[in-house]
Amino acid sequence: MALSKNRIKYIHSLEQKKNRKADKVFLAEGPKLVGDLLGHFPCQFLLATSEWLSRNRPLSTVADATEVSEEELSRASLLKTPQQVLAVFRQPDEETDISVISHSLCLALDDVQDPGNLGTIVRLADWFGIEHIFCSPNTVDIYNPKTVQATMGGIARVRLHYTPLPEFIRSLKDIPVYGTFLDGENMYGQPLSKNGLIVMGNEGNGIGKEVEALINRKLYIPNYPASRETSESLNVAIATAVVCAEFRRQAAL
Amino acid sequence: MALSKNRIKYIHSLEQKKNRKADKVFLAEGPKLVGDLLGHFPCQFLLATSEWLSRNRPLSTVADATEVSEEELSRASLLKTPQQVLAVFRQPDEETDISVISHSLCLALDDVQDPGNLGTIVRLADWFGIEHIFCSPNTVDIYNPKTVQATMGGIARVRLHYTPLPEFIRSLKDIPVYGTFLDGENMYGQPLSKNGLIVMGNEGNGIGKEVEALINRKLYIPNYPASRETSESLNVAIATAVVCAEFRRQAAL
Repeated sequence: MALSKNRIKYIHSLEQKKNRKADKVFLAEGPKLVGDLLGHFPCQFLLATSEWLSRNRPLSTVADATEVSEEELSRASLLKTPQQVLAVFRQPDEETDISVISHSLCLALDDVQDPGNLGTIVRLADWFGIEHIFCSPNTVDIYNPKTVQATMGGIARVRLHYTPLPEFIRSLKDIPVYGTFLDGENMYGQPLSKNGLIVMGNEGNGIGKEVEALINRKLYIPNYPASRETSESLNVAIATAVVCAEFRRQAAL
Repeated sequence: MALSKNRIKYIHSLEQKKNRKADKVFLAEGPKLVGDLLGHFPCQFLLATSEWLSRNRPLSTVADATEVSEEELSRASLLKTPQQVLAVFRQPDEETDISVISHSLCLALDDVQDPGNLGTIVRLADWFGIEHIFCSPNTVDIYNPKTVQATMGGIARVRLHYTPLPEFIRSLKDIPVYGTFLDGENMYGQPLSKNGLIVMGNEGNGIGKEVEALINRKLYIPNYPASRETSESLNVAIATAVVCAEFRRQAAL
């Protein structure tokens, strides 16, 4: 079966959130990522080279698998360097169960805008065993194709919940709520809990005022040597990683 | 003075390494970054809106400053959202002084390919007081415009040296050489030195075999909970940050 122009157009339309949302689907590319996701999300259709298909038959869970040439794949792909396979998956239904937070460590993201940053955060959350991320409604969409790629498969194991953060945080009872601030306490001098919420902010503006007022444990990632002239901040994904690593170091002591 | 087509063409040509190298220049955009760099690198020329110019006069160090409209700036800019000012700076002469490594902590990058990753690493090196990064010749160019932007000014304070890593590492005497590996030792159980070299690898392939053989302290960043199913790795900039943070935490104890 040849690859139709309509299908290429459809795939490209999934760069737009409104189109992904209308059909409740998202796109993923490359053998490693698609391989990871096939076991986790229903696949609507996939396009793959004969090389990939021959290594992955039988594809019991994919009704619609089309063999395409490298040239056809590169016309459909959103990547600079297309990689053997491209698949459209169904988005899972989102259910927010706030109770997870009473017995585990979760992240909250207040308007993170960059698709690559969000994907990188999902990937590192996966590494550090953080299974739930609560995102403000203005946080970039987890199903943005650049985000999906950057998760490197983490999207299969980490759940994202889009919800207004002030209301969400107010609904938590007796849960420590952490955030990083330039005037926070050196995090290496603080006992960090095994459950609770770590809030990270927007790339340019940090954590919003309304959310900041609800944070009861302000942390600071010390630079080195202390008080040296540096750039004013760390990238949000980098800061998230350094904080999560310290929570997990202490938890394992 | 109007903005000539030739100048726009010249600016766009600086996306290519060979053109940057021929003229020993690089491009930077936005008030924060350009402001940071003006004190550190000779500026060949800049384009700015009247708004930026009125806030930054007199520009004693810039002979060639051209006022442009928002519309002209957006034709010259490589950013999706141009920001008031765009400047072309002269690359500093590179001199490699290996002796820095005997009394400070340095990074080495073995074929890091993504411009954003390199820029993010420079930014976090700046935060953690790491002033020298040794890069394999195939590592992406520090003067790639995307890299420069991602450093957020760190490029003014962190020096990069492009040199074949095996020869470089062999020339070091009695210096600890660290690297992260899935079969390394849990880094939280290791005493980490205040000087030495931390080697980080390529996004897909990690550290090359020849360099790996020269690493005498193999570290592992533990995931959580240990031995849980996760994605197989962390993004290279994330891993660099977590390792550097731990070196600096121990150094400050």
